[in-house]
Amino acid sequence: MKTMSRLVVGVVLVVMVAGVAMAQFAKPEDAIQYRKSVMFLISQHIKRMGAVVQGKAEFDREDFAANAETVKHLATLPWKAMLEPGTDKGDTSMTAAVFEKKDDFMKIAAAFEADADDLATAAQGADLEGIKPAFGAVVQHCKACHSAFRK
Amino acid sequence: MKTMSRLVVGVVLVVMVAGVAMAQFAKPEDAIQYRKSVMFLISQHIKRMGAVVQGKAEFDREDFAANAETVKHLATLPWKAMLEPGTDKGDTSMTAAVFEKKDDFMKIAAAFEADADDLATAAQGADLEGIKPAFGAVVQHCKACHSAFRK
Repeated sequence: MKTMSRLVVGVVLVVMVAGVAMAQFAKPEDAIQYRKSVMFLISQHIKRMGAVVQGKAEFDREDFAANAETVKHLATLPWKAMLEPGTDKGDTSMTAAVFEKKDDFMKIAAAFEADADDLATAAQGADLEGIKPAFGAVVQHCKACHSAFRK
Repeated sequence: MKTMSRLVVGVVLVVMVAGVAMAQFAKPEDAIQYRKSVMFLISQHIKRMGAVVQGKAEFDREDFAANAETVKHLATLPWKAMLEPGTDKGDTSMTAAVFEKKDDFMKIAAAFEADADDLATAAQGADLEGIKPAFGAVVQHCKACHSAFRK
Protein backbone atom coordinates (compact mmCIF):
# COMPACT_ATOMS: atom_id res chain seq x y z
CA MET A 1 0.00 0.00 0.00
CA LYS A 2 2.89 2.27 0.89
CA THR A 3 4.45 1.56 -2.53
CA MET A 4 1.11 2.26 -4.17
CA SER A 5 0.75 5.65 -2.43
CA ARG A 6 4.28 6.56 -3.42
CA LEU A 7 3.49 5.69 -7.01
CA VAL A 8 0.34 7.81 -6.93
CA VAL A 9 2.23 10.74 -5.40
CA GLY A 10 4.91 10.32 -8.06
CA VAL A 11 2.39 10.35 -10.91
CA VAL A 12 0.58 13.36 -9.45
CA LEU A 13 3.88 15.26 -9.18
CA VAL A 14 4.83 14.46 -12.78
CA VAL A 15 1.40 15.59 -13.99
CA MET A 16 1.74 18.81 -11.98
CA VAL A 17 5.17 19.59 -13.41
CA ALA A 18 3.90 18.81 -16.92
CA GLY A 19 0.93 21.10 -16.26
CA VAL A 20 3.23 23.94 -15.22
CA ALA A 21 5.34 23.41 -18.34
CA MET A 22 2.21 23.57 -20.51
CA ALA A 23 1.07 26.74 -18.79
CA GLN A 24 4.41 28.37 -19.68
CA PHE A 25 4.37 27.62 -23.41
CA ALA A 26 1.44 26.75 -25.66
CA LYS A 27 3.71 24.68 -27.95
CA PRO A 28 7.40 23.64 -28.16
CA GLU A 29 8.02 26.18 -30.96
CA ASP A 30 7.06 28.96 -28.55
CA ALA A 31 9.65 27.78 -26.03
CA ILE A 32 12.30 27.78 -28.77
CA GLN A 33 11.31 31.23 -30.03
CA TYR A 34 11.18 32.50 -26.44
CA ARG A 35 14.72 31.49 -25.55
CA LYS A 36 16.09 32.56 -28.94
CA SER A 37 14.52 35.98 -28.42
CA VAL A 38 16.09 36.28 -24.98
CA MET A 39 19.48 35.15 -26.28
CA PHE A 40 19.40 37.58 -29.20
CA LEU A 41 18.62 40.47 -26.87
CA ILE A 42 21.37 39.44 -24.44
CA SER A 43 23.85 39.19 -27.32
CA GLN A 44 22.95 42.68 -28.54
CA HIS A 45 23.47 44.24 -25.11
CA ILE A 46 26.66 42.24 -24.51
CA LYS A 47 28.00 43.50 -27.87
CA ARG A 48 27.27 47.11 -26.91
CA MET A 49 29.17 46.67 -23.64
CA GLY A 50 31.90 44.67 -25.39
CA ALA A 51 32.56 47.54 -27.79
CA VAL A 52 33.11 49.83 -24.79
CA VAL A 53 35.32 47.33 -22.94
CA GLN A 54 37.41 46.89 -26.11
CA GLY A 55 37.77 50.66 -26.50
CA LYS A 56 35.82 50.70 -29.77
CA ALA A 57 33.01 52.80 -28.30
CA GLU A 58 33.01 55.58 -25.75
CA PHE A 59 32.27 54.75 -22.11
CA ASP A 60 28.98 56.32 -21.06
CA ARG A 61 28.32 55.27 -17.48
CA GLU A 62 24.54 55.58 -17.59
CA ASP A 63 24.32 53.77 -20.89
CA PHE A 64 26.61 50.96 -19.76
CA ALA A 65 24.68 50.54 -16.51
CA ALA A 66 21.39 50.35 -18.46
CA ASN A 67 22.83 47.62 -20.69
CA ALA A 68 24.08 45.69 -17.66
CA GLU A 69 20.72 46.05 -15.90
CA THR A 70 18.91 44.72 -18.97
CA VAL A 71 21.22 41.71 -19.23
CA LYS A 72 20.73 41.06 -15.51
CA HIS A 73 16.98 40.85 -16.02
CA LEU A 74 17.13 38.88 -19.28
CA ALA A 75 19.58 36.39 -17.70
CA THR A 76 16.80 35.10 -15.44
CA LEU A 77 14.42 34.29 -18.28
CA PRO A 78 15.59 31.62 -20.75
CA TRP A 79 16.30 28.50 -18.67
CA LYS A 80 12.77 27.12 -18.27
CA ALA A 81 12.28 27.42 -22.03
CA MET A 82 15.46 25.39 -22.54
CA LEU A 83 14.28 22.62 -20.23
CA GLU A 84 11.02 22.25 -22.15
CA PRO A 85 10.87 18.56 -23.23
CA GLY A 86 11.61 17.81 -26.88
CA THR A 87 12.90 21.27 -27.72
CA ASP A 88 16.35 20.04 -28.73
CA LYS A 89 14.63 19.35 -32.05
CA GLY A 90 13.29 21.90 -34.52
CA ASP A 91 14.63 25.36 -35.34
CA THR A 92 17.21 25.40 -32.57
CA SER A 93 20.93 25.01 -31.97
CA MET A 94 20.42 23.62 -28.45
CA THR A 95 21.56 20.02 -27.96
CA ALA A 96 19.97 17.22 -25.92
CA ALA A 97 22.91 17.56 -23.51
CA VAL A 98 20.75 20.12 -21.67
CA PHE A 99 18.44 17.27 -20.62
CA GLU A 100 21.19 14.65 -20.22
CA LYS A 101 23.40 16.87 -18.06
CA LYS A 102 20.73 19.04 -16.52
CA ASP A 103 22.66 19.66 -13.28
CA ASP A 104 25.76 20.84 -15.16
CA PHE A 105 23.58 23.00 -17.34
CA MET A 106 21.75 24.61 -14.42
CA LYS A 107 25.07 25.20 -12.65
CA ILE A 108 26.38 27.27 -15.58
CA ALA A 109 23.00 29.00 -15.91
CA ALA A 110 23.08 29.98 -12.23
CA ALA A 111 26.69 31.18 -12.55
CA PHE A 112 25.73 33.30 -15.56
CA GLU A 113 22.85 34.85 -13.62
CA ALA A 114 25.14 35.60 -10.68
CA ASP A 115 27.75 37.11 -13.03
CA ALA A 116 25.13 39.29 -14.71
CA ASP A 117 24.02 40.44 -11.27
CA ASP A 118 27.61 41.28 -10.31
CA LEU A 119 28.11 43.16 -13.58
CA ALA A 120 25.00 45.28 -12.99
CA THR A 121 26.31 46.13 -9.52
CA ALA A 122 29.81 46.90 -10.81
CA ALA A 123 28.34 49.11 -13.54
CA GLN A 124 26.83 51.35 -10.85
CA GLY A 125 30.39 52.57 -10.20
CA ALA A 126 32.02 55.01 -12.57
CA ASP A 127 35.28 53.19 -13.21
CA LEU A 128 35.48 51.17 -16.44
CA GLU A 129 38.58 49.30 -15.25
CA GLY A 130 36.61 48.08 -12.25
CA ILE A 131 33.81 46.85 -14.53
CA LYS A 132 36.03 44.88 -16.92
CA PRO A 133 36.57 41.75 -14.75
CA ALA A 134 32.81 41.46 -14.11
CA PHE A 135 32.14 41.79 -17.83
CA GLY A 136 34.79 39.16 -18.57
CA ALA A 137 33.13 36.71 -16.18
CA VAL A 138 29.78 37.11 -17.95
CA VAL A 139 31.36 36.45 -21.34
CA GLN A 140 33.23 33.41 -19.99
CA HIS A 141 29.95 31.84 -18.89
CA CYS A 142 28.32 32.67 -22.25
CA LYS A 143 31.10 30.71 -23.92
CA ALA A 144 31.15 27.83 -21.41
CA CYS A 145 27.44 27.19 -21.89
CA HIS A 146 27.56 27.54 -25.68
CA SER A 147 30.47 25.14 -26.08
CA ALA A 148 28.81 22.52 -23.87
CA PHE A 149 25.18 22.80 -24.96
CA ARG A 150 25.03 24.32 -28.42
CA LYS A 151 25.44 22.67 -31.82
CA MET B 1 29.31 82.48 -43.90
CA LYS B 2 26.63 82.16 -41.22
CA THR B 3 24.62 79.91 -43.56
CA MET B 4 27.73 77.86 -44.20
CA SER B 5 28.39 77.34 -40.46
CA ARG B 6 24.77 76.36 -39.92
CA LEU B 7 25.08 73.87 -42.73
CA VAL B 8 28.25 72.43 -41.20
CA VAL B 9 26.62 72.21 -37.75
CA GLY B 10 23.61 70.53 -39.36
CA VAL B 11 25.76 67.95 -41.14
CA VAL B 12 27.78 67.27 -37.98
CA LEU B 13 24.56 66.73 -35.99
CA VAL B 14 23.15 64.33 -38.59
CA VAL B 15 26.41 62.37 -38.62
CA MET B 16 26.38 62.21 -34.81
CA VAL B 17 22.80 60.94 -34.69
CA ALA B 18 23.59 58.42 -37.42
CA GLY B 19 26.64 57.37 -35.40
CA VAL B 20 24.54 56.76 -32.32
CA ALA B 21 22.06 54.77 -34.38
CA MET B 22 24.90 52.68 -35.84
CA ALA B 23 26.29 52.05 -32.37
CA GLN B 24 22.92 50.61 -31.31
CA PHE B 25 22.49 48.23 -34.24
CA ALA B 26 25.12 46.91 -36.64
CA LYS B 27 22.52 46.62 -39.43
CA PRO B 28 18.78 47.32 -39.99
CA GLU B 29 17.99 43.58 -39.75
CA ASP B 30 19.34 43.59 -36.19
CA ALA B 31 16.97 46.40 -35.22
CA ILE B 32 14.06 44.45 -36.68
CA GLN B 33 15.08 41.22 -34.94
CA TYR B 34 15.64 43.13 -31.71
CA ARG B 35 12.18 44.65 -31.54
CA LYS B 36 10.50 41.44 -32.73
CA SER B 37 12.29 39.56 -29.94
CA VAL B 38 11.11 42.07 -27.35
CA MET B 39 7.55 41.98 -28.70
CA PHE B 40 7.45 38.18 -28.71
CA LEU B 41 8.60 38.06 -25.09
CA ILE B 42 6.08 40.71 -24.05
CA SER B 43 3.29 38.79 -25.81
CA GLN B 44 4.24 35.58 -24.00
CA HIS B 45 4.15 37.22 -20.58
CA ILE B 46 0.94 39.12 -21.40
CA LYS B 47 -0.67 35.81 -22.42
CA ARG B 48 0.35 34.20 -19.12
CA MET B 49 -1.22 37.06 -17.18
CA GLY B 50 -4.21 37.14 -19.54
CA ALA B 51 -5.00 33.49 -18.79
CA VAL B 52 -5.10 34.34 -15.07
CA VAL B 53 -7.22 37.46 -15.57
CA GLN B 54 -9.68 35.44 -17.71
CA GLY B 55 -9.87 32.74 -15.03
CA LYS B 56 -8.27 30.11 -17.28
CA ALA B 57 -5.22 29.75 -15.04
CA GLU B 58 -4.82 29.92 -11.29
CA PHE B 59 -3.74 33.19 -9.68
CA ASP B 60 -0.29 32.82 -8.18
CA ARG B 61 0.69 36.20 -6.78
CA GLU B 62 4.46 35.72 -7.00
CA ASP B 63 4.24 34.36 -10.51
CA PHE B 64 1.94 37.14 -11.70
CA ALA B 65 4.19 39.78 -10.15
CA ALA B 66 7.23 38.27 -11.88
CA ASN B 67 5.43 38.40 -15.25
CA ALA B 68 4.41 42.01 -14.66
CA GLU B 69 7.96 42.96 -13.62
CA THR B 70 9.36 41.37 -16.78
CA VAL B 71 6.88 43.23 -19.02
CA LYS B 72 7.74 46.46 -17.20
CA HIS B 73 11.41 46.03 -18.07
CA LEU B 74 10.80 44.81 -21.64
CA ALA B 75 8.44 47.75 -22.29
CA THR B 76 11.37 50.16 -22.12
CA LEU B 77 13.39 48.39 -24.81
CA PRO B 78 11.83 48.27 -28.29
CA TRP B 79 11.19 51.91 -29.30
CA LYS B 80 14.67 52.90 -30.47
CA ALA B 81 14.77 49.82 -32.67
CA MET B 82 11.47 50.91 -34.21
CA LEU B 83 12.75 54.39 -34.99
CA GLU B 84 15.77 53.00 -36.84
CA PRO B 85 15.62 54.53 -40.35
CA GLY B 86 14.46 52.28 -43.17
CA THR B 87 13.26 49.47 -40.93
CA ASP B 88 9.67 49.68 -42.15
CA LYS B 89 10.99 47.49 -44.98
CA GLY B 90 12.18 43.91 -44.72
CA ASP B 91 10.93 41.10 -42.47
CA THR B 92 8.66 43.33 -40.41
CA SER B 93 5.02 44.23 -39.94
CA MET B 94 5.83 47.79 -38.80
CA THR B 95 4.56 50.53 -41.11
CA ALA B 96 6.23 53.80 -42.15
CA ALA B 97 3.58 55.57 -40.04
CA VAL B 98 6.05 55.21 -37.14
CA PHE B 99 8.31 57.74 -38.89
CA GLU B 100 5.50 59.86 -40.36
CA LYS B 101 3.64 60.21 -37.05
CA LYS B 102 6.56 59.86 -34.70
CA ASP B 103 5.01 62.03 -31.96
CA ASP B 104 1.80 59.99 -31.91
CA PHE B 105 3.86 56.81 -31.88
CA MET B 106 6.04 57.92 -28.98
CA LYS B 107 2.96 59.06 -27.06
CA ILE B 108 1.46 55.55 -27.20
CA ALA B 109 4.86 54.02 -26.42
CA ALA B 110 5.21 56.21 -23.33
CA ALA B 111 1.65 55.38 -22.24
CA PHE B 112 2.38 51.67 -22.62
CA GLU B 113 5.54 52.01 -20.52
CA ALA B 114 3.60 53.87 -17.83
CA ASP B 115 0.83 51.24 -17.88
CA ALA B 116 3.37 48.43 -17.56
CA ASP B 117 4.90 50.26 -14.62
CA ASP B 118 1.46 50.63 -12.99
CA LEU B 119 0.71 46.95 -13.57
CA ALA B 120 3.97 45.87 -11.91
CA THR B 121 3.08 48.05 -8.91
CA ALA B 122 -0.51 46.74 -8.77
CA ALA B 123 0.79 43.16 -8.97
CA GLN B 124 2.69 43.71 -5.72
CA GLY B 125 -0.70 43.60 -3.99
CA ALA B 126 -2.46 40.29 -3.46
CA ASP B 127 -5.87 41.13 -4.91
CA LEU B 128 -6.51 39.98 -8.48
CA GLU B 129 -9.55 42.25 -8.82
CA GLY B 130 -7.32 45.23 -8.06
CA ILE B 131 -4.86 44.14 -10.75
CA LYS B 132 -7.41 43.69 -13.55
CA PRO B 133 -7.88 47.37 -14.50
CA ALA B 134 -4.10 47.86 -14.71
CA PHE B 135 -3.81 44.79 -16.90
CA GLY B 136 -6.65 46.04 -19.11
CA ALA B 137 -4.87 49.36 -19.63
CA VAL B 138 -1.70 47.60 -20.81
CA VAL B 139 -3.66 45.50 -23.30
CA GLN B 140 -5.52 48.59 -24.57
CA HIS B 141 -2.23 50.28 -25.43
CA CYS B 142 -0.92 47.11 -27.10
CA LYS B 143 -3.97 47.21 -29.36
CA ALA B 144 -3.88 50.98 -29.95
CA CYS B 145 -0.28 50.85 -31.16
CA HIS B 146 -0.78 47.74 -33.29
CA SER B 147 -3.84 49.11 -35.07
CA ALA B 148 -2.08 52.41 -35.85
CA PHE B 149 1.43 51.23 -36.71
CA ARG B 150 1.29 47.59 -37.77
CA LYS B 151 0.43 46.09 -41.15
